[in-house]
Amino acid sequence: MPQVRAVVIPAPKAAVEVREFPEPEVPVGGVLMKTLYSEVCGTDVHLFHGRLSGVPYPLIPGHVAVGVAEKVRGPVTDLHGRPITEGQVITYLDVHKTCGRCWYCLVAKASTRCPERKVYGITYGASDGLLGGWSEKMLLLPGLHILPLPEGVKPETFIGAGCGLQTAVHAVERAEIKLGDSVAILGSGPVGLSCAALAALSGAGFVLVSGAPDDRLAKAKEFGADEVLDIRQTHEPDRVATVRRLTEGRGADVVIEACGEPRAVREALQMVRDQGRVVVVGQYTDRGEVALNPHGDINRKHVEIRGVWGSDYSHVYRGLRLLARFQQRVPWRDLGQNVYSLDSAGEALRAVEEQRCLKAVVKPGKRT
Amino acid sequence: MPQVRAVVIPAPKAAVEVREFPEPEVPVGGVLMKTLYSEVCGTDVHLFHGRLSGVPYPLIPGHVAVGVAEKVRGPVTDLHGRPITEGQVITYLDVHKTCGRCWYCLVAKASTRCPERKVYGITYGASDGLLGGWSEKMLLLPGLHILPLPEGVKPETFIGAGCGLQTAVHAVERAEIKLGDSVAILGSGPVGLSCAALAALSGAGFVLVSGAPDDRLAKAKEFGADEVLDIRQTHEPDRVATVRRLTEGRGADVVIEACGEPRAVREALQMVRDQGRVVVVGQYTDRGEVALNPHGDINRKHVEIRGVWGSDYSHVYRGLRLLARFQQRVPWRDLGQNVYSLDSAGEALRAVEEQRCLKAVVKPGKRT
Amino acid sequence: MPQVRAVVIPAPKAAVEVREFPEPEVPVGGVLMKTLYSEVCGTDVHLFHGRLSGVPYPLIPGHVAVGVAEKVRGPVTDLHGRPITEGQVITYLDVHKTCGRCWYCLVAKASTRCPERKVYGITYGASDGLLGGWSEKMLLLPGLHILPLPEGVKPETFIGAGCGLQTAVHAVERAEIKLGDSVAILGSGPVGLSCAALAALSGAGFVLVSGAPDDRLAKAKEFGADEVLDIRQTHEPDRVATVRRLTEGRGADVVIEACGEPRAVREALQMVRDQGRVVVVGQYTDRGEVALNPHGDINRKHVEIRGVWGSDYSHVYRGLRLLARFQQRVPWRDLGQNVYSLDSAGEALRAVEEQRCLKAVVKPGKRT
Amino acid sequence: MPQVRAVVIPAPKAAVEVREFPEPEVPVGGVLMKTLYSEVCGTDVHLFHGRLSGVPYPLIPGHVAVGVAEKVRGPVTDLHGRPITEGQVITYLDVHKTCGRCWYCLVAKASTRCPERKVYGITYGASDGLLGGWSEKMLLLPGLHILPLPEGVKPETFIGAGCGLQTAVHAVERAEIKLGDSVAILGSGPVGLSCAALAALSGAGFVLVSGAPDDRLAKAKEFGADEVLDIRQTHEPDRVATVRRLTEGRGADVVIEACGEPRAVREALQMVRDQGRVVVVGQYTDRGEVALNPHGDINRKHVEIRGVWGSDYSHVYRGLRLLARFQQRVPWRDLGQNVYSLDSAGEALRAVEEQRCLKAVVKPGKRT
Repeated sequence: MPQVRAVVIPAPKAAVEVREFPEPEVPVGGVLMKTLYSEVCGTDVHLFHGRLSGVPYPLIPGHVAVGVAEKVRGPVTDLHGRPITEGQVITYLDVHKTCGRCWYCLVAKASTRCPERKVYGITYGASDGLLGGWSEKMLLLPGLHILPLPEGVKPETFIGAGCGLQTAVHAVERAEIKLGDSVAILGSGPVGLSCAALAALSGAGFVLVSGAPDDRLAKAKEFGADEVLDIRQTHEPDRVATVRRLTEGRGADVVIEACGEPRAVREALQMVRDQGRVVVVGQYTDRGEVALNPHGDINRKHVEIRGVWGSDYSHVYRGLRLLARFQQRVPWRDLGQNVYSLDSAGEALRAVEEQRCLKAVVKPGKRT
Repeated sequence: MPQVRAVVIPAPKAAVEVREFPEPEVPVGGVLMKTLYSEVCGTDVHLFHGRLSGVPYPLIPGHVAVGVAEKVRGPVTDLHGRPITEGQVITYLDVHKTCGRCWYCLVAKASTRCPERKVYGITYGASDGLLGGWSEKMLLLPGLHILPLPEGVKPETFIGAGCGLQTAVHAVERAEIKLGDSVAILGSGPVGLSCAALAALSGAGFVLVSGAPDDRLAKAKEFGADEVLDIRQTHEPDRVATVRRLTEGRGADVVIEACGEPRAVREALQMVRDQGRVVVVGQYTDRGEVALNPHGDINRKHVEIRGVWGSDYSHVYRGLRLLARFQQRVPWRDLGQNVYSLDSAGEALRAVEEQRCLKAVVKPGKRT
Repeated sequence: MPQVRAVVIPAPKAAVEVREFPEPEVPVGGVLMKTLYSEVCGTDVHLFHGRLSGVPYPLIPGHVAVGVAEKVRGPVTDLHGRPITEGQVITYLDVHKTCGRCWYCLVAKASTRCPERKVYGITYGASDGLLGGWSEKMLLLPGLHILPLPEGVKPETFIGAGCGLQTAVHAVERAEIKLGDSVAILGSGPVGLSCAALAALSGAGFVLVSGAPDDRLAKAKEFGADEVLDIRQTHEPDRVATVRRLTEGRGADVVIEACGEPRAVREALQMVRDQGRVVVVGQYTDRGEVALNPHGDINRKHVEIRGVWGSDYSHVYRGLRLLARFQQRVPWRDLGQNVYSLDSAGEALRAVEEQRCLKAVVKPGKRT
Repeated sequence: MPQVRAVVIPAPKAAVEVREFPEPEVPVGGVLMKTLYSEVCGTDVHLFHGRLSGVPYPLIPGHVAVGVAEKVRGPVTDLHGRPITEGQVITYLDVHKTCGRCWYCLVAKASTRCPERKVYGITYGASDGLLGGWSEKMLLLPGLHILPLPEGVKPETFIGAGCGLQTAVHAVERAEIKLGDSVAILGSGPVGLSCAALAALSGAGFVLVSGAPDDRLAKAKEFGADEVLDIRQTHEPDRVATVRRLTEGRGADVVIEACGEPRAVREALQMVRDQGRVVVVGQYTDRGEVALNPHGDINRKHVEIRGVWGSDYSHVYRGLRLLARFQQRVPWRDLGQNVYSLDSAGEALRAVEEQRCLKAVVKPGKRT
């Protein structure tokens, strides 16, 4: 019986280890995928530290991945009804089991709030099967939405964009950027960079990114930022003043918080113009509270604040099409160059946590 | 030379007094209005305590008023081009000088954020003229938007609804209530009551009002609330639990904060369902900060928060039409029954501040 | 083996007949429902005449119905996860098999355009099973969305509202009526009447219904219309002039076409004000073309026209809640008083076609 | 007394002629502008043929122009309150006297439908003064919105973009293009080209332009079209089939009609996908009717159609900012290369009418 090697986080804060699992039977409607690449993103660092609730450790991390369909059992199709074939390079929506039958799915049409949804590499544990990307092979269960990579999009480019692009597609959809709008983005991680890219592609009149360290800010410029602010060398009032100076004193039309610090929400509200829009997408884990002044920050400003949770199929689908169209203009591929083997996954986690790289990629087939 | 008696707040916290002013010349395009009624609303209490910035004391309070056109000079028309005639019962949009030429007016189309705007009874002082409603006569300057009261709407009904209705029209417009939505309103003052009425008139499936004291909650039921919560006899977690219980565990589709306490914004975010909408309309003055959790309150909830500042012509216009159509169903008139003379204006302020009445009305022609 | 009596349209224009079918096995996840009432609506007349494409004759008509759960097999739940129990009074969303996996479901989020969807009593034929309401019993297949009737809503009231209410919920959702808006509705059938009711419940400032004959217009007034226009006694220019006269010369803020005549779309565009909104919901079958002037009717008017196709779960769900809340105010129940047995179904069809009644109801348990 | 030479259309279809007018007094708040360039657009051809209603012949055409402030009288400022100074290169919003006091301005917030508005070069006649651009000097009346050209934007670039850009800004605003949307544009004139450019700048996933002749289609590709269709070599069904083929059979997400032929609205409805959006911006004059099928074209498609009339300040302002930001990427300047003197204005009109050039420019200072 063939064995599959996969990285496991045994418990919060416990060192990751490589374990062997028997290669699973593929159920009807399922696909066994040979993993080419998976991601190490900030969420994986949170998972390692046990900062997310509802995670069934031990866990095989890696919610987003790309691979080759190795075994396809029964009719498995993409959204056009075209069959997924063995040998095809594919990815998937990491959210599974959105029920389509509850109040949130049917009445609110808020599928990212469906209580039934399960997420590969996050809310599925190792005991559920090979349902995380840091594994030589993954089992794509029946009902999972599978998408072939568009012609011309390489796996390396896809994984460079990763979940950051999908999240940014959702955030920018909520931001409703108009041609010529000024946009400030707080955060220079993968989500912040893709937000900068999508703001620029949306025809923003001005894109500013605040963050750190230097290499991320340099990358932000390549991704479309007109201006960057180093948060290690500036204070909040300076940054707010800079945004105002660049917007004739008003503040930005749209501000996207994509850094995860609670106090960034306050800064975003300082930076936005009256009757502007603040999108809060970075607060993926609970890192505490922030004090806001409802009079000055919300009521008097006539501002609009929108939270963004999760992604749905449309964000993955649109992300793939944007990659296909704009991969020459936006260097998403560069983000996927820090490649680790399964055996070095712990090192990859540390590199991301210490911001030594913008993001890390796990390549299960790589020799250490 | 005829004299006009008016109430003046000489300075923050200084006792109000009645002063005499010479009856002004009416400029071309202006109207001298004999005041029938003006309001004493929460804003006037704030003005008395000096809690608003940019107020040029001494001040004649009373931003909203209704009266009889006594002298009309030159062509003065309503929005249909029909002339305002002497003897007509009229009111006006209390905002003057919205410039129509700045970035906020022209590009953002956010006229309530126009920096040129002046407000009768708030940012116009006594030295600017008879530009507040606690006065026997008011000068409606050229360019002020004047509206005749619709047929069948009595001045007493209009002043009962007062600025609370106009603000509620704006808040409910931002709330985008759909037929059958559950709506929770925090606050049982004039704004909260009119929000309850308008939510019910919008076809809400359920309307809850939290506030105090008893008479306001009783009135809230007459205004359309299905359920009321007494904030003096409940704690935040209970109130949140009640809203969830009444909404199958989810929270309300729409929550409108209309009470002015910073912590009510936090409560509103607890009460709203995932992907719901919170409208913040009560934070008219700076009463400090509130601690929010951006992860749990905003991002994970995928919620939308909208501030509401000021009113424009459309809100006054729509408010008048709603009065004309629904005055039988909503007892706005009852709110205007605590009537004070100019000489008792100080007493009126105290009555409102101490919540001895829901609102007070100043009737300049009344004998003390 | 027990037999079930059901009405069948054998082929377009062929006389309806009662046939016997064996009572079906209930599959796991399915429900056998004893039919209390089903509807005879305009669509059934179209089905009889063969005016819809994609209909697999012979057909058991009746897309909307209400009944008693007679056999429930396996876990069948409502959207809250509560089990459907035998003896419960239930209804269902008549649309089945919306796939949740195609471009329209996932990317456009336009589930009423899903190519997989099947409709009970319309695109399911008699050979597919007891999937129409003009039958003693119906088979509710696994995956069909089942809803218990809310407490206090009688089957007679539900069937009186019928599919007209569900369609109206969708149309009024697209119409985005604001408090105080003037609304004109073209058509006084079940959809038009429910649109009138919902416009009034939404706080419209004025509701006008045009249609015929007299009894429908009388009913329109009971449903919330302020004014009615008899299309047999007026011409298009007169009706347009009337709407303009009632709206200070401008035209209505919102016009809903709910009558099915192509020329009504032209009339709607004449009746709507500049920058208003026209909702087209009545054109369920192809009844030919209408000539429009794109300059005067669309471009210069800066108007917005929105088509409305089908209903989804949210419309049925909201419809039920509106019935529960507003059944005292809107006499939906009156529409369900023309009750026919299965054996008189042909007569019911004729009565609807000849507009001898507003709508007819089939009651399978009724003796002829 | 100095004389000013200007081109006049004496009456519909009467040959244009150069007349001399006395240089006007500049009223307080006004500016005398030396005209650098004005436009000859399709509207001017319509004016020549008398196809617009409400035009007070004789007329000095040229609604959009750019020039040098020659005499500035009194305080004249831009929207930031900065004074307009003599010698500055300026343009203006061609719409004057939007009243800010009528129902359309105040309640509907539909300023392009204000009945008071007057348009330079279209609804102002020669007897009103030098209020058209085909003139050595223009009088910018008090209240006209004046905008300095942004730094780095040359008059030649501005006039190349002309009113086509402003109209396209409005049309694309109404189109609400999302990142990755497929967009089809019917028409390859100045409006169609700028729509193509703005769709591409908005991050469209695909832009198709249909039109003629060859040089316009070649230019469309430079403006951002991925694909062009020559309407002289194709039939409607072919074009519709092409759009469907390029969109996986569905039709385009957004279709913008920008050609003025009534039948193009029908074609747009064929080309758009179900639940897509059609923007109608080209039907500036009445060129007759088109037959639509409300069932198949509107209701069943669940489509949305939006008319676009006129422009307001925000469109001119945003257009200028887009020029400043994107003039390297979009060759607007190339459109302004067919330059005519005042004495050759008749020739310019013919060139535009016969589509010998994409657009013509009048340069009053040019020697013939």
